[in-house]
Amino acid sequence: MQLFYADSFYNPSALYSGASSVRKLLDNSRANVADVVGVKSSEIVFTAGCTEANNIALQGVMKANPGGKLLVSAIEHDSVMGALATMAGSIIPVHPTGLLDLEALSLLLDEDVVLVSVMYANNEIGTVQSLREIAAVLDEERKRRGSRGRPLYFHTDAAQAGNYLSIKARSLGVQLMSLNGGKLYGPKASGCLFVGSEVIIEPILFGGSQESGLRSGTENVPAAIGFSTCLVEASEKATTESNRIELLHKKLVVALLGLGGIINGSQKHRLPNIINCRFLGIDNEVLVFQLDRLGFQIASGSACHAARGESSHVLGAIGLSDDEARESVRISMGRFTMARDVDNLIASISHLLAQ
Amino acid sequence: MQLFYADSFYNPSALYSGASSVRKLLDNSRANVADVVGVKSSEIVFTAGCTEANNIALQGVMKANPGGKLLVSAIEHDSVMGALATMAGSIIPVHPTGLLDLEALSLLLDEDVVLVSVMYANNEIGTVQSLREIAAVLDEERKRRGSRGRPLYFHTDAAQAGNYLSIKARSLGVQLMSLNGGKLYGPKASGCLFVGSEVIIEPILFGGSQESGLRSGTENVPAAIGFSTCLVEASEKATTESNRIELLHKKLVVALLGLGGIINGSQKHRLPNIINCRFLGIDNEVLVFQLDRLGFQIASGSACHAARGESSHVLGAIGLSDDEARESVRISMGRFTMARDVDNLIASISHLLAQ
Repeated sequence: MQLFYADSFYNPSALYSGASSVRKLLDNSRANVADVVGVKSSEIVFTAGCTEANNIALQGVMKANPGGKLLVSAIEHDSVMGALATMAGSIIPVHPTGLLDLEALSLLLDEDVVLVSVMYANNEIGTVQSLREIAAVLDEERKRRGSRGRPLYFHTDAAQAGNYLSIKARSLGVQLMSLNGGKLYGPKASGCLFVGSEVIIEPILFGGSQESGLRSGTENVPAAIGFSTCLVEASEKATTESNRIELLHKKLVVALLGLGGIINGSQKHRLPNIINCRFLGIDNEVLVFQLDRLGFQIASGSACHAARGESSHVLGAIGLSDDEARESVRISMGRFTMARDVDNLIASISHLLAQ
Repeated sequence: MQLFYADSFYNPSALYSGASSVRKLLDNSRANVADVVGVKSSEIVFTAGCTEANNIALQGVMKANPGGKLLVSAIEHDSVMGALATMAGSIIPVHPTGLLDLEALSLLLDEDVVLVSVMYANNEIGTVQSLREIAAVLDEERKRRGSRGRPLYFHTDAAQAGNYLSIKARSLGVQLMSLNGGKLYGPKASGCLFVGSEVIIEPILFGGSQESGLRSGTENVPAAIGFSTCLVEASEKATTESNRIELLHKKLVVALLGLGGIINGSQKHRLPNIINCRFLGIDNEVLVFQLDRLGFQIASGSACHAARGESSHVLGAIGLSDDEARESVRISMGRFTMARDVDNLIASISHLLAQ
């Protein structure tokens, strides 16, 4: 990225030769992303982060399909929840595990629904949805509609998935997928939206019509290159990292249960790196601050909510009361988390709870 | 920026201590930007570039003021032109100099107009508008409306202005102003929107409600810090750079006129660094490619248009025919342009025209 900030800074849409070499590198990054996602290069739109990708997907599809309805799961990110609030549509409930209620989905799927958005892996409780099962329900509805009905698209916010899960969009059965560079050890405000070539969508930002017209603005070449490099690396490391962190996860869960912790969300269909846990009678903000002083950076709810002091809608959706949500903390592990870090965290929580 | 990508990468909205130190640095950057713009910190919204800032300004104000109309000058960037195309409103013509037709503005200013957007300094012909004169016309209209009429706001896209002109928003009489880091030797996809605290505006992107709710998404800390650093530097250098480049401008114009060139746009109300010039019978793309081979990166139209092979609406608006637009090239100078570069360019153009 340094190189592209400092030297090869040309606007890739200009005509002179320095610009065309930058254009080639941008195209190359796009091809690398498309390869990981298992789609065509022309179906990848670079965005300034995943919130923007989600907004382009939801607002763009709904704008291009007037009169249509949107369905989103009850545990989506605020970028999806916020879009729903301005559109015709409904929330699909989830089970206490965090998994989508497929029967409710079937009931809500009337002939006007044009877009269903379900997060691949949840950012707060780590629940991993079976996108293929959801896609199968949508396929049934498509058959019912036949060729004369509205189109029906499936979008997934896969921000949390790229480090551990396959994100081959077509195999998963989605026509739109958002990815987030910042969650892949890449630059903040980088990411992309996969938009299948068959999707009817309109831009929500106007301008120079870069990124197939869906994200105007001079291309952010350093961010695109940083994002694609990190996505490829994450994809290559996904299996080994997933296995390595799964061992830490098991160890940590056993210890937390031993300390009286209650695990929120599915223990079967989940990411290896996220544990959402509560301790009866313990205020999560107190635990966050106490652990911070000991060098552990854990979270209460999402960072987006934390800054506003709001309770988590995700924990509410899986059946927790406000009091239970205030007892819940989220522990995230990652590429730099080692076994000794987990041991130290267990010892620290044990120490704090004993006080 | 390197430091904030590699080490201090924390999400500034999180609660742990590493995050709060990043939050302080982000706040500090915002205060520095506010200082250059002469406004309050709370009136600065960091954006992923100027196209996005323009979209938030125009779409956000029009959305929050339903039934209102938008007026934009005929020589705006595509991000403004594109927004107008989806809204009720009109284009304000410009004189052959590129300066706004103030009489036309007065005629178009009916009681439903809520937003007027006029670019401070034009990206293709360099024309600098007298924002204060335009603001005075709007003030008259505000008085006519009294306290019971619609609000009337003035937005300026100041992307090209920060290196050479004062951008004290309140002195210029604007309530909204877009700035672009990429034009200030800063990072691409960085910038900000000044939104006066009195402006009635709604977000166009939904999510975690960062940036006063107007630009959701995890804050791009490296970009904000890079942008504010470059804006402060540009502001400090504005007078000396303006004077230095003005000398090169005069030299270049005299030489171009001597070679049969015709200068497009005002020679009085203009930036020091941009010259738009045409040579009878010379295809601009040929000249761009020939000069590129000699190491000079000049432009035909804007980069946004160039990639799509379209003719410039700006040159059309100042009265040039399509044929005349195809003879026009844009020469831009900057902080790294030296007198010998100008001498070499003059010699090269002279050589090419003699062939």
